[in-house]
Amino acid sequence: MNKTIETLLNHRSIRKFKDTKLTTEQIHTIVKAAQQASTSSHVMAYTIIGITDENLKAELKAVSGQPYVKDNGHLFVFCGDLNRIYKQAAPAEQAQMQESIESTEQFIVTTIDVALAAQNATIAAESMGLGTCFLGSLRNDINHVNNLLDLPEHVIPLFGLAVGYPDQQPEIKPRLPIEAIYHENKYANDEDQSEIITDFDNQLASYYENRSKNARSDTWSEQMIRKYKNPIRMDVTPFIKDKKLNRR
Amino acid sequence: MNKTIETLLNHRSIRKFKDTKLTTEQIHTIVKAAQQASTSSHVMAYTIIGITDENLKAELKAVSGQPYVKDNGHLFVFCGDLNRIYKQAAPAEQAQMQESIESTEQFIVTTIDVALAAQNATIAAESMGLGTCFLGSLRNDINHVNNLLDLPEHVIPLFGLAVGYPDQQPEIKPRLPIEAIYHENKYANDEDQSEIITDFDNQLASYYENRSKNARSDTWSEQMIRKYKNPIRMDVTPFIKDKKLNRR
Repeated sequence: MNKTIETLLNHRSIRKFKDTKLTTEQIHTIVKAAQQASTSSHVMAYTIIGITDENLKAELKAVSGQPYVKDNGHLFVFCGDLNRIYKQAAPAEQAQMQESIESTEQFIVTTIDVALAAQNATIAAESMGLGTCFLGSLRNDINHVNNLLDLPEHVIPLFGLAVGYPDQQPEIKPRLPIEAIYHENKYANDEDQSEIITDFDNQLASYYENRSKNARSDTWSEQMIRKYKNPIRMDVTPFIKDKKLNRR
Repeated sequence: MNKTIETLLNHRSIRKFKDTKLTTEQIHTIVKAAQQASTSSHVMAYTIIGITDENLKAELKAVSGQPYVKDNGHLFVFCGDLNRIYKQAAPAEQAQMQESIESTEQFIVTTIDVALAAQNATIAAESMGLGTCFLGSLRNDINHVNNLLDLPEHVIPLFGLAVGYPDQQPEIKPRLPIEAIYHENKYANDEDQSEIITDFDNQLASYYENRSKNARSDTWSEQMIRKYKNPIRMDVTPFIKDKKLNRR
């Protein structure tokens, strides 16, 4: 196994960081790596905002409810951005571009572009011995985050990424077995999948019971039911439409 | 610079592969690496379909119009998947889960989950000396791809990933300068950005003029205008809503 694959397979989210800031050089390396990810038709439909203002960090922490949004080596906010190409187009073309920019297709392009870049950032950071945590929790109040960062039309904050020197070493959480998520040529058979999920529920129950911190009784299916039976962040839908994305 | 960052920074899409299939071990390593990416609340909202059936590959190539969809070492199709959690939930909870599953928020969760996993797959492959190409072109006829792969409700094909031994060594395409995409604490100033984009247009014009293959006269802004003034894949919107995603 090569060193890179070792890094990929050793990933676990870090939620407690040492009190050491990243250097400008480290930040630039991470961003440069992010930029080198594939991008749909060279659109580069993202903007990354680094948060250095401590008051702003405190506000973002309040949105997320997670202390590591404030206490980390550096905080990035990854934004989907179709404003750059819209603004750069000659005014004559903007009206013609509108239908495309507002389509679900281009919303998908943007979201994927952002995530590919962010995963490269994560791998770059981890290869340097840093830890990371994705922060979808910034969407707890997407309107407020948007206002804090002063984002124009066609730009949306999608998630944060906290980076820093790990001050914890959590176990690696088990993933679904490969048979659950990888299939050949067509979608999986329901009955086979049902058995696989039951086995995984048992495996995860044992992981939760035995882990060194925060032991509890739980299964994957129970977690998913809990998560999905109470809709969250329903204001994301009108927010994105107001931003003139995903509306056609 | 460590080996992993070197791999990240050396990325270029490969569109011509040698006639050598990936081994099962290589495929499993790539999928395992994909699975280890971060996932929102442990949802793992993706299914990866490996295409080994040559007739199916030919059909997918026809959708994309790209020969490397057929001629590669292995072809993966990455799908957003909220069916797994919906099916595994007790029937009593399905009705309660519906609002959440159908929200734009969960559509974002799915799309990001898929892309994070796919980027890990890409990095794993590249670290083994393989080349990759993302295939958003499968969305050229998303309904047909969906039918070919027999995907149920709440599952959507998002993109393909062609992997194989490179039979070309294209130049690395210039990215926007870091000043265009990375900012501190707030979104960028329009005037500063306009200058940066003009400089980048000139840089890219020179890249296109001088590159060893397919030299042409073009700029980034012109490319973007061409791409966006003719809306494409507008059928993606109703397709996804019919799949009962992104509809609330």
